[in-house]
Amino acid sequence: MKVLGEIVFVGLGLNDEMGISLRGLEEVKSADSVFIELYTSLMLNFSVKRFEEISGKPLQIVSRKELEEKNGEALLETARKGKVVLLVPGDPLIATTHIALRLQAKRLRIKTVVVHGASIISAVMGLSGLHNYKFGKSVTVPFSDGIPSETPYNVIEQNKKLGLHTLCLLDIKAEEKRYLNIHESLCTLLKIEEKKKKKIVTMNTLAIGIARAGSENPIVKADFVRKLLNYDFGEPPFSLVFPGELHFMEAEALIFLADAPKSLRKCVK
Amino acid sequence: MKVLGEIVFVGLGLNDEMGISLRGLEEVKSADSVFIELYTSLMLNFSVKRFEEISGKPLQIVSRKELEEKNGEALLETARKGKVVLLVPGDPLIATTHIALRLQAKRLRIKTVVVHGASIISAVMGLSGLHNYKFGKSVTVPFSDGIPSETPYNVIEQNKKLGLHTLCLLDIKAEEKRYLNIHESLCTLLKIEEKKKKKIVTMNTLAIGIARAGSENPIVKADFVRKLLNYDFGEPPFSLVFPGELHFMEAEALIFLADAPKSLRKCVK
Repeated sequence: MKVLGEIVFVGLGLNDEMGISLRGLEEVKSADSVFIELYTSLMLNFSVKRFEEISGKPLQIVSRKELEEKNGEALLETARKGKVVLLVPGDPLIATTHIALRLQAKRLRIKTVVVHGASIISAVMGLSGLHNYKFGKSVTVPFSDGIPSETPYNVIEQNKKLGLHTLCLLDIKAEEKRYLNIHESLCTLLKIEEKKKKKIVTMNTLAIGIARAGSENPIVKADFVRKLLNYDFGEPPFSLVFPGELHFMEAEALIFLADAPKSLRKCVK
Repeated sequence: MKVLGEIVFVGLGLNDEMGISLRGLEEVKSADSVFIELYTSLMLNFSVKRFEEISGKPLQIVSRKELEEKNGEALLETARKGKVVLLVPGDPLIATTHIALRLQAKRLRIKTVVVHGASIISAVMGLSGLHNYKFGKSVTVPFSDGIPSETPYNVIEQNKKLGLHTLCLLDIKAEEKRYLNIHESLCTLLKIEEKKKKKIVTMNTLAIGIARAGSENPIVKADFVRKLLNYDFGEPPFSLVFPGELHFMEAEALIFLADAPKSLRKCVK
C-alpha cells in the first residue's frame, strides 16, 4: 500500500516555547504546515507569536471541536499532501485524543512519526522526590459541578492498600481558562471522605502539592491536608501526590526538597 | 542562609543529542561547567563530540562510581563556585541516584534547578497505544545471573488483578554495554511462571515489545509471548508492556499501531 503524506506529533514539553526538543524544532522547520493544539494542557507561558519567531513557521491553532468532533479532518486532509507537524503540550501520545488521531491517520495510510517531549507525569514524579516505581495507577480529579466523582478517592485508596503513591492530575478546561486548584481538589476528596469514612484523605493525611512543574519557579510542598488547604501555591497548573509507604530516602527528600514536617521520619517503614 | 552556587539537572530526553529541550541547551551554554552521566540509561546514538559542537561546551563524563560511591563530591565541589549543569538521560529525577545528589546539594546549600526531558516512561506508555491512566506500578526486569527475581512477575500479577497495564523497563549495564533484551526477559518471566503456575505470563499471554523508543525508527509490536520470543526487534534499548483489561479503543490502537493479531477484538471488555 502506498503511504501518503506524513503527520509528525511533536511534544512541546512543559511550560513555554522553550520546552520543545532540538529534534522537534527541526521537524517544525522542515514541515509544510504546522498545527498546534493548546487545550489538552495548560501552558500559561506559551506564546504562539514567540514560537513562530523561533521556528520561522506560522502556526494554525486547532480546537478541541476540530480534533474531537470532526476527527481532525482538516489536518488529515492537509497531511495527505505533504508533511504536517502537530504540536502538542507535554509528551504527544499521553492524551487519548492524539492516539485516536494517529489511528485515523494510519487507517488513511498517512505515515505518523512521534517526537517525544517532557511529560507532566514523569516531571511530577521526579519533583515529588518519591521513587517512580512506587507510583500506582494515576488519576485525574475532575471539576465537581454538582456531585463529586468518587474515582480519585477510590484510586488513592487502592494504591494506599498496596503501599503505592498516587499521582493526581487536576482537571483543566484550557479553552475556558479554568483549572482546578489544590484547595478545591482537597475539598472534593474530603467530601468523599465524609461519606465513606475510610480515613483515606483526612485533615491529617500527608500530601504533596505541586505548582508549575517544568517552569522556572515550581513549588513543591509536602504537608498534612489541613495545612495544604491554606497554602498559597500561586499560579497554575497544579498537581497532587498522595504518598503510600515511605522509604527513608523518600522521607528525607520530602523534608529537604518539599519542606515536609520533620515528624515524617516517624512514618518511615 | 546564604545559597552557594547552583546545579541545573538537565534532561537529555531520548535517543541522541537532539533530545534536549531549547531551555536545556540554553542552560548548558550559560554554565561554568558541564557534567554528563550516561550510565543510568542507554543512549546508543548520543555523541559527546556532536553535543560539544552544538553547545560549544566541553563535557566532563561522570561515572557511576563518582556519583554513587563518592556521592558526587567533585561535582558538588565545582557547584559551590559557580553554575554546574549535570546532563542526564531522559527526565533527570527519574533515577533515584539523582534525587540523592539533589538532596546532598540542598544540604550543602547549593541551589538546584530542574529542566525536564522526555522520559522512557511516558514515551513507552504513549507508543504502546494504551491509555496512560490504566498503567499500574511499573517495574524493572533485572539481569538474572543465577536465580531470577520474582518481583516483575508479581507486579504484573498484581496489576492484572486490578485490570491494569504493566510497564517493564529492561535492565541495562550501560558502562558494560550490556542490556537485557525482550527474548531474555520473556524467558525469565516464563521461568517464574513454570514455578508459580498462575497463568500470568504464558506462551499465550499478550504483550507489547518496544525497541528504540524516542528514536527515528522505533518498533512497537504487540503479539502473544510465543510469537514475541522469536521476533527480531533489532537494536536496543527495549521495553515490555503487559496489558491488563483492554478498552476497545486500546485494542484498535494495538491492531493498527502495533500490528497486533485481529483476534484481540474478542478480548475487549
